[in-house]
Amino acid sequence: MSRHISILDSTLRDGAQAEGISFTVQDKLKIVKLLDELGVDYIEAGNPGSNPKDGEFFSKVKELKLKNSKIAAFGSTRRKDIAVGNDPQIKALLKADTPVTVFFGKTWDFHVTEIINADLNENLAMIHDTAKFLKENNKEVIFDAEHFFDGYKANPGYALAAVNAAVEGGADCIALCDTNGGAFPDDVYSIIKSVREKIAVPNGFPLGIHCHNDCGMAIANSIMAVSAGAAQVQGTLTGFGERCGNANLSAIIPNLQLKRNYNCILSDNMRNLTYSARYISEIANVRLDYGSPYVGRSAFTHKAGMHIDAVGKNPLSFEHVNPESIGNARKIIASEIAGRGAVVDKIRRVKSDIDKNSPETEAIIQKLKAMEHQGYQYEAADGGFELLIRRELGQYRPFFELVNFRIAAERPYLPGSSATAMIKIIVGGKTEITAAEGEGPINALDKALRKALEVFYPQISTLRLSDYKVRVMDSKEATASRVRVLIESSDGEDNWTTVGVSTDIIEASWIALVDSVEYKLIKDLGKLFFGGG
Amino acid sequence: MSRHISILDSTLRDGAQAEGISFTVQDKLKIVKLLDELGVDYIEAGNPGSNPKDGEFFSKVKELKLKNSKIAAFGSTRRKDIAVGNDPQIKALLKADTPVTVFFGKTWDFHVTEIINADLNENLAMIHDTAKFLKENNKEVIFDAEHFFDGYKANPGYALAAVNAAVEGGADCIALCDTNGGAFPDDVYSIIKSVREKIAVPNGFPLGIHCHNDCGMAIANSIMAVSAGAAQVQGTLTGFGERCGNANLSAIIPNLQLKRNYNCILSDNMRNLTYSARYISEIANVRLDYGSPYVGRSAFTHKAGMHIDAVGKNPLSFEHVNPESIGNARKIIASEIAGRGAVVDKIRRVKSDIDKNSPETEAIIQKLKAMEHQGYQYEAADGGFELLIRRELGQYRPFFELVNFRIAAERPYLPGSSATAMIKIIVGGKTEITAAEGEGPINALDKALRKALEVFYPQISTLRLSDYKVRVMDSKEATASRVRVLIESSDGEDNWTTVGVSTDIIEASWIALVDSVEYKLIKDLGKLFFGGG
Repeated sequence: MSRHISILDSTLRDGAQAEGISFTVQDKLKIVKLLDELGVDYIEAGNPGSNPKDGEFFSKVKELKLKNSKIAAFGSTRRKDIAVGNDPQIKALLKADTPVTVFFGKTWDFHVTEIINADLNENLAMIHDTAKFLKENNKEVIFDAEHFFDGYKANPGYALAAVNAAVEGGADCIALCDTNGGAFPDDVYSIIKSVREKIAVPNGFPLGIHCHNDCGMAIANSIMAVSAGAAQVQGTLTGFGERCGNANLSAIIPNLQLKRNYNCILSDNMRNLTYSARYISEIANVRLDYGSPYVGRSAFTHKAGMHIDAVGKNPLSFEHVNPESIGNARKIIASEIAGRGAVVDKIRRVKSDIDKNSPETEAIIQKLKAMEHQGYQYEAADGGFELLIRRELGQYRPFFELVNFRIAAERPYLPGSSATAMIKIIVGGKTEITAAEGEGPINALDKALRKALEVFYPQISTLRLSDYKVRVMDSKEATASRVRVLIESSDGEDNWTTVGVSTDIIEASWIALVDSVEYKLIKDLGKLFFGGG
Repeated sequence: MSRHISILDSTLRDGAQAEGISFTVQDKLKIVKLLDELGVDYIEAGNPGSNPKDGEFFSKVKELKLKNSKIAAFGSTRRKDIAVGNDPQIKALLKADTPVTVFFGKTWDFHVTEIINADLNENLAMIHDTAKFLKENNKEVIFDAEHFFDGYKANPGYALAAVNAAVEGGADCIALCDTNGGAFPDDVYSIIKSVREKIAVPNGFPLGIHCHNDCGMAIANSIMAVSAGAAQVQGTLTGFGERCGNANLSAIIPNLQLKRNYNCILSDNMRNLTYSARYISEIANVRLDYGSPYVGRSAFTHKAGMHIDAVGKNPLSFEHVNPESIGNARKIIASEIAGRGAVVDKIRRVKSDIDKNSPETEAIIQKLKAMEHQGYQYEAADGGFELLIRRELGQYRPFFELVNFRIAAERPYLPGSSATAMIKIIVGGKTEITAAEGEGPINALDKALRKALEVFYPQISTLRLSDYKVRVMDSKEATASRVRVLIESSDGEDNWTTVGVSTDIIEASWIALVDSVEYKLIKDLGKLFFGGG
């Protein structure tokens, strides 16, 4: 039976301290449900004493029926010179009415004397009193020993005394914090080993670890802490957190569970890890780094020709785990370096008798290079790449001819129609002219184009644009910069992405819009005539 | 005297295998100059045998006079069943004419038999022959022992035999590679310790380490390798690399040099680290993660009120190193969580007699919250935030009145004028109407506004827009999504950033443009009347 490592996720508390992150109450409730489904042991969900918005959250979160996780409120020790029961921050902690309370206290003597200007003994009393009071109020109590590793290096006796004050006050778990993120893995290992021997706790008393990533080693430090005996890991699922972030649980959990045989979450939930990390990023509106270990979109992407060939023979050759084990997927991408293999695979989906040495392959690779030179990238634009292949193979005919469009935007403007677009197209000799208004020039153009096309192709009505991204490429050219537009489309059955590049955002969007529409029409034709997309 | 750890940067080789990265020859030459200035020992700059573009690069790079770095070409062992001197890939390596050659070979028996289908002894001969041939051709030779850690765990005898084949062939350095990124720091440490004892090399023979970040531990693994005796670290300055990236040198170098007293680059160059990492990201057109250890824009950012107070007392309280030591800077950001302290600091720059409890402070915080709710963020928009403060304090007057503008964009269009903008403004009772054409609607509007304003305010002519960013916020709304536009401006003396939010990109850009212009005019007035911006 493998040892259980309890996981405390602090996305909603420490994660919310990251630059650019701000959660609404609704966001927080969604993330609680997600983390509960994933099955972390503790969700540290806010700081009721310092953030008034968290009050509303804690009253609502009680209504959720959680299956796996306990909600924790976070706060600090009582202030100096005040009785613990009278401290408004402690009152707010109780009022949050959570089964678990996490409180932090100073363990680095420098912080006690220089930052909070307290007497060293008074600080020990603050820790002790707070733990005791929370226990008397029937909380499960976790003490975050702030700056423990720096404190232990500076004054080990005092750092241990601070931890012992919490133990004697009745804390159920002591989490040793590398608050400034400056610790090294070998230090973390040896300090935890020696702390275990020096504090007055029964066998099996849980120590936790709480790391920050300022040296880029928060994941490794957490792993080494577990090797040294820690039984709880605190972090955030996507690594969000102040400065360089908190320890990234979406790497720590599979590192421990898939590679070191510890038990963190239910095995069946492991394959929800990628989805969970991406969902939290989406709610936070922060792009999850493509290179995020295990869960990033590039984590199992192969681009070099030699690697692609090897993975085709045996995935183990260039993959440290099976991407499906954590709900991620392998990706082979189109690019110069990928060599012909990857490109040929894509061409074959359109025309099955092509091989590496076919002249069509050469022509498509040349075209791909020329487009990449202009700023196109097809790595994310599968739909656009398929159209490029079809055009080169002659398996393409235009579905409409543009006569012209005109967009007008002006100010002052009326709400809901800040821009208008007129468009005139020809299909099979017949002309259609129409217009639409929209939120800005591109939305107006998008609506006008689809309105005109629907006259000839009713199936366009199922087409929805599900995502729109703008990337300014050479942003030093300011408003004359070249932009790349990616449009993701869906018709309820399939999704595809198309791309356009121009110094004019309208032109770039137009190119991607037209490709999106044509991809849809070709796909439906393919179903009719060729039995497949 | 501290031990020197040689640094091999592979941004231009392994880094270029990352998804979304593609360097031109000019890009590569710029990066070589930058890395040479920073002072890394080796620049692994390309794979001439597999990438034809690299041929042109290697002939040009010889013309650069490098001060600190040696250029290395990268390739593999000779193929099986061919004499080393006849292998076209080996010929390409020689033709690159670099002082250093790095070649990789298989050290994991599974890869030999399953992936390249070679006999195990033949693979040893391939490694030996290649090292020997390159030495005979006067190269400094580094052998990258591919998949060494996986190979050593599977079959230690064979992995060591592969390394010994390179040593006997004359290789000058053996880099042990965790190619799939699956190794743990304690494994790396103990394996390197035992390898040193088991291979037939003289005292002082350098072992190197080459890690990938698939478990999120490449930095820690590299550090542990050095602790175990490695004398060379391979990685990429910004962590770019296939899948989850290579070991991030911009964290490893300061970890080793500032915290463990090793010597990697000249101390004087350490403060160029942040600039260098950001410059490479810019050339690669990849946004450097804000949370990047040491060099990210958020690496020394403080948002929580308690942390801001503490850092004000002593920066050591929440910073693991001095940000200036690596050329980064502390940042205190405006946000709800920051509490009043940070906001008050900014208000005081405009009006010095304000304090935490002034009614103006409360009004500005309320306004800030309302704007954040709409999607504004002032964390990156210092100029926009100052204008918000001035408006609330009544220290603002409009510099012009917009009567109206009209933008027209159409297709077909003429090159260089894909859009036109007409604008009419009033300044001091006088009307100015003018027009401009530009690359897209926003560029046209930007030019027209500045043209009209210059009639009244000639100092506008020094204003340049130095950066333009578009962020689609709720991209699921597709082309009707709300966008946030950030505009960075400069007048040669100062830089400032302004922000606009709207579902219409023209409207969002207009808000940010107007703020940029007004910031400039207020700044110049301030110089005249108040003696400061």
